[in-house]
Amino acid sequence: MIVRDEPGLWALTFAMRGSVLPKILPRIAVVTGISIALVWFDHSIWPIHLAGAAPFAVFGVALSLFLGFRNNAAYDRWWEARKLWGQLIADCRAYARELDVFVAEVSHRHTMLRLAGGFIHLHRVNLRGISPDGTARIWVDDLLDAPHPPCAALNAIAHSLRDAQKNGALDGFGAKALSERLASMALAQAGCERIATTPLPFVYSLLVHRTSLLYCLLVPLGVMNIAGWMTPVFVAVIAYVFFGLAAVTEELERPFGSTVNSLPLDAMCRVVEIALAPHLGEAAPKRMQPVAHVLS
Amino acid sequence: MIVRDEPGLWALTFAMRGSVLPKILPRIAVVTGISIALVWFDHSIWPIHLAGAAPFAVFGVALSLFLGFRNNAAYDRWWEARKLWGQLIADCRAYARELDVFVAEVSHRHTMLRLAGGFIHLHRVNLRGISPDGTARIWVDDLLDAPHPPCAALNAIAHSLRDAQKNGALDGFGAKALSERLASMALAQAGCERIATTPLPFVYSLLVHRTSLLYCLLVPLGVMNIAGWMTPVFVAVIAYVFFGLAAVTEELERPFGSTVNSLPLDAMCRVVEIALAPHLGEAAPKRMQPVAHVLS
Amino acid sequence: MIVRDEPGLWALTFAMRGSVLPKILPRIAVVTGISIALVWFDHSIWPIHLAGAAPFAVFGVALSLFLGFRNNAAYDRWWEARKLWGQLIADCRAYARELDVFVAEVSHRHTMLRLAGGFIHLHRVNLRGISPDGTARIWVDDLLDAPHPPCAALNAIAHSLRDAQKNGALDGFGAKALSERLASMALAQAGCERIATTPLPFVYSLLVHRTSLLYCLLVPLGVMNIAGWMTPVFVAVIAYVFFGLAAVTEELERPFGSTVNSLPLDAMCRVVEIALAPHLGEAAPKRMQPVAHVLS
Amino acid sequence: MIVRDEPGLWALTFAMRGSVLPKILPRIAVVTGISIALVWFDHSIWPIHLAGAAPFAVFGVALSLFLGFRNNAAYDRWWEARKLWGQLIADCRAYARELDVFVAEVSHRHTMLRLAGGFIHLHRVNLRGISPDGTARIWVDDLLDAPHPPCAALNAIAHSLRDAQKNGALDGFGAKALSERLASMALAQAGCERIATTPLPFVYSLLVHRTSLLYCLLVPLGVMNIAGWMTPVFVAVIAYVFFGLAAVTEELERPFGSTVNSLPLDAMCRVVEIALAPHLGEAAPKRMQPVAHVLS
Amino acid sequence: MIVRDEPGLWALTFAMRGSVLPKILPRIAVVTGISIALVWFDHSIWPIHLAGAAPFAVFGVALSLFLGFRNNAAYDRWWEARKLWGQLIADCRAYARELDVFVAEVSHRHTMLRLAGGFIHLHRVNLRGISPDGTARIWVDDLLDAPHPPCAALNAIAHSLRDAQKNGALDGFGAKALSERLASMALAQAGCERIATTPLPFVYSLLVHRTSLLYCLLVPLGVMNIAGWMTPVFVAVIAYVFFGLAAVTEELERPFGSTVNSLPLDAMCRVVEIALAPHLGEAAPKRMQPVAHVLS
Repeated sequence: MIVRDEPGLWALTFAMRGSVLPKILPRIAVVTGISIALVWFDHSIWPIHLAGAAPFAVFGVALSLFLGFRNNAAYDRWWEARKLWGQLIADCRAYARELDVFVAEVSHRHTMLRLAGGFIHLHRVNLRGISPDGTARIWVDDLLDAPHPPCAALNAIAHSLRDAQKNGALDGFGAKALSERLASMALAQAGCERIATTPLPFVYSLLVHRTSLLYCLLVPLGVMNIAGWMTPVFVAVIAYVFFGLAAVTEELERPFGSTVNSLPLDAMCRVVEIALAPHLGEAAPKRMQPVAHVLS
Repeated sequence: MIVRDEPGLWALTFAMRGSVLPKILPRIAVVTGISIALVWFDHSIWPIHLAGAAPFAVFGVALSLFLGFRNNAAYDRWWEARKLWGQLIADCRAYARELDVFVAEVSHRHTMLRLAGGFIHLHRVNLRGISPDGTARIWVDDLLDAPHPPCAALNAIAHSLRDAQKNGALDGFGAKALSERLASMALAQAGCERIATTPLPFVYSLLVHRTSLLYCLLVPLGVMNIAGWMTPVFVAVIAYVFFGLAAVTEELERPFGSTVNSLPLDAMCRVVEIALAPHLGEAAPKRMQPVAHVLS
Repeated sequence: MIVRDEPGLWALTFAMRGSVLPKILPRIAVVTGISIALVWFDHSIWPIHLAGAAPFAVFGVALSLFLGFRNNAAYDRWWEARKLWGQLIADCRAYARELDVFVAEVSHRHTMLRLAGGFIHLHRVNLRGISPDGTARIWVDDLLDAPHPPCAALNAIAHSLRDAQKNGALDGFGAKALSERLASMALAQAGCERIATTPLPFVYSLLVHRTSLLYCLLVPLGVMNIAGWMTPVFVAVIAYVFFGLAAVTEELERPFGSTVNSLPLDAMCRVVEIALAPHLGEAAPKRMQPVAHVLS
Repeated sequence: MIVRDEPGLWALTFAMRGSVLPKILPRIAVVTGISIALVWFDHSIWPIHLAGAAPFAVFGVALSLFLGFRNNAAYDRWWEARKLWGQLIADCRAYARELDVFVAEVSHRHTMLRLAGGFIHLHRVNLRGISPDGTARIWVDDLLDAPHPPCAALNAIAHSLRDAQKNGALDGFGAKALSERLASMALAQAGCERIATTPLPFVYSLLVHRTSLLYCLLVPLGVMNIAGWMTPVFVAVIAYVFFGLAAVTEELERPFGSTVNSLPLDAMCRVVEIALAPHLGEAAPKRMQPVAHVLS
Repeated sequence: MIVRDEPGLWALTFAMRGSVLPKILPRIAVVTGISIALVWFDHSIWPIHLAGAAPFAVFGVALSLFLGFRNNAAYDRWWEARKLWGQLIADCRAYARELDVFVAEVSHRHTMLRLAGGFIHLHRVNLRGISPDGTARIWVDDLLDAPHPPCAALNAIAHSLRDAQKNGALDGFGAKALSERLASMALAQAGCERIATTPLPFVYSLLVHRTSLLYCLLVPLGVMNIAGWMTPVFVAVIAYVFFGLAAVTEELERPFGSTVNSLPLDAMCRVVEIALAPHLGEAAPKRMQPVAHVLS
């Protein structure tokens, strides 16, 4: 995630970090090239029967609505993903406090706190589709080969609750409170997995891509007779707007990816570690800081 | 559901899988044919009094808003259906953990776990409107003729809770926790049934269909005098955009159907099986993999 | 509610059932007639100073936004009403299960189940503003004259809970679980009553109606000089789109009415009866089937 | 709130009650007058260099989006306010039932029921910013000078709960259930206070007002050369649409005000009184009826 | 936050307080200057090949959709932040009442009430990124150096709960109720921190800024040939609309900042103090009043 305090006009105009321009430049070049060819053909070889701009008005409105819909849907996924992680952070903090309130013995508490730290890291690596890294292994070591590691961590917490209850370290109220907490974490976890495994319906990608392409290929016919040799400039600008929005959409649609616009899962796991530390009697680590404006 | 990792431009431009093009081609052909006839008539037989493009601007904006509304509503149904299944997955995981925490005896636990597995499969076949298949029969065998099989599975869990409580294997806290879990599952189940049994108001289908059709039939009159023999091209493109969006909408409106854009209920039932396995002491099955990019 | 499996093109184009056309035909006829008069006056008596189409573009966009807003708000009411009934269905199912779990004696359970069946029917007749019909009287007979019958049914359930607790048939956990269930039903009930008693702000009806009317009366001045004798055709089409959407909106705004687009409250009460039957030890009735594509 | 059963076309076209026309007429007159002056100046004194309609298209789309956004936000506030009152109604009903279930002694119950009636009336007068009227004083008499009277009523309920628990008239389950109910009422109350004390950001009022004004002042330059002496008619219609929507927005933004479009707080307090009456053993009052189509 | 009772037309037209005009004037001046230069160049030096207005229609619609999306997202953040603070206010009130109901001893209650007051002030200074001021130090004094001070305050409440339970001043029901309350506060707190630490995706800032700039630089080419020397007026107005909306968006995106449009955190902390006072047996302070229409 890119973190910048109100960037100046210069940065906004020319920044490359976080921009989708490099990614869409080839497409813009292709459609601009075709429009140059059309203008040249019309001017030098054979006057094409020109279409006039009117038919493009409605086409453009429809296309804008497509892109607007897809953009909203992608941003909603990104923001919902962030909300679910916010829920997980709040749940981990509440979980640690509820252990303090309800679990009498410190050894039980520490076991369950470490399992929660393990859960959040295993959840992170599961969402990113990477193998458990060093930071995760500090918290948990023996659940890495489970069929679904983050679920295994939550299962282990449930077993600890059962043991604590048997030992008399936990009463019925505490068992109910803590199992509700686990369920809340499981719901946020399943929400993240939903976003990670269910892309936007593919049919939208097809429809949006094909409509943008048709638009950029046909629009020179519409503006050529009024814009003349400036036609390629317009085509390039319009292609920038449409392809740019499509590219943004594709990045935000996958909030757990590894682009600069993805969510900072590492930093959020650190926030959980900071929350667990005082309950474990340890010194809290520092908040993560962005590197070159990017928080990973 | 179609699962593809950022398909390339070529795939986006020419993929047929998941596209609605085959479905709408006949309609596009009809309106394009009519526009060809109109252009030919105007040119060769008798000049039609032409209308000018202006009246179509507002008409097109209104039509775009209709289609945009219907598309939003259909996508919201699809995504809500997915959210409800995510809730069911999280509930099944939490249910299994709460059994571990609150139910003392392993035989009770196993009975109730198998009933939950049965519930999710019966819910799946109920939503799809198919008869219980082999996968469902592995989990549950005697509830298939109940008036409402998934409800019967949840009723059987309630009876098991009562029995466990009578036997002293479950205390009041556990009974409350587990009956809240059942209620949460029942709410997600009723939500799915709501989506499956309540289509979008039929009046929208009429209004959208008739307005698109009128638009495509009249638009040649508007653009003919400026676009000439290119008119049919524009009509075809506009028909592609409007009919295409309408067709997408009809598919997403029914998220539990069997088209390639439907939700992968089979794969999600498998996710529940993976979650239940460790609590049953069994080896977890593998996640389902997409076949030719499609997850069923 | 109209239930049709993907109607064919022919049905979509010419179906009258569910269409708003009969309702709005008079208005369309009036504005079309006025436009014919204007065209005739301009052509035969005295050329009117014509306005050009440009001023109508912005006007039309604004009007589309009005109608779009009102349509969204009306559909949201309709869909929220359906969601609230889905919540009631799920609550009734969960209520019956919780009675099985927490209430020891069968006679108490049956009393409370019948009261729930009575509640849902009294809620239905209350929303529809009709007097209790035979189906309702089967379930409940002595609460029909209460100041607010559905509330009286829930009050009677609360009294039964108190009695069961006094008799030792219900412990504290059960009392808490069941009174939470009652509160959830009361919330969904109050939500339905909110929709039934609070129309969309009247000022929107005025603004939308007046703006549509002004638009349809003035638009001939804008398109007459380019569309000529086709002007009335355009006016009719535009009036169909704008008045049609307004009429749809008025139907969906009142989801508990008795038009073909209203919610199928009878069928949903039947779903609750099907859910209660096995807990009462009775045979479940059949699901209701649509009659001529309409579910009441 | 205005309550009318599907008003006829005549009423919709000429009704003044509930209309914003009287409020915005002066503004419409001013901008129409300026447009008349411009047309006269252009025609009789000195031809103004005319601008053409094209630049206004984009300007108008942007303005429509502004107004649409503000209208959505205002309506959402109005509807959320109604939802929060629906929540309060449901909570009061559930509260009365939970008193019946959990509080053994009738005198405790009656004290707490009267405090709830007092709460809802004090909440009403607090939101409306009026001093406690006779209806409120019937229910509660000694909390009117508290720093925050509705909070004082809820505090008094909490003290009654404590007393009942000390006297053995309330067990732990009941204390938990009833304090959860109080918290739910406090949340809905705080939601209403949020809407009452937090207007829409002022900067939107500035931006919308200034943009509408600029638009209405400049638009004659755009349409004068095509619309001629009909220009003032268009300006008046456009001003009606834009200023009308802005005025609607300002009314709905303050749902607890005293205009005809405000929420009927008196009638909703009456609904709560009807719900409390049977629990107090009193006859229920009648529902309030609209006076001249207005429910206060 | 600016609080004004329905400001008059004069104030709306010329108010500077709360306006974004001073902030965006330089940008408007730059693009207007460039348009003047273009017009002069075209007129006096060399006629530029002019583009016509048509290509700008679609471009403008797309840009309006971008700005509309960003504006919606920013306003949603601002309003969600206000909702979360409303939740915190309701939670603090409910917390104080639950202490009265469940905690037997007054000294425990006062400790926990003061910690809640400390929490809300530490949360405020944490969100604003300022160091704890005098108002905060009145409530809490020893948690200011904790790694995360508001979390430390909630942790201290959890420890107090544990102590009260050990001393017999709190039973299991109370421990469950109060730890649920803490969890609810932690969720609202984490929500605020989410909004404070997660800006809107930077890529939108880039896309919106660059598209607005391109639009304002190119639009003179489109309108010059029809608007002539009035072109700079149009460019200035369009720049006001687009840059103005972008500036509003940037302010509302950061609801915990210190601009006049930020949320009044000081006043809301005061509301919590007013709510806690009667439970502490202290006189309640006064509500904060706006200073020059601004509530801080």
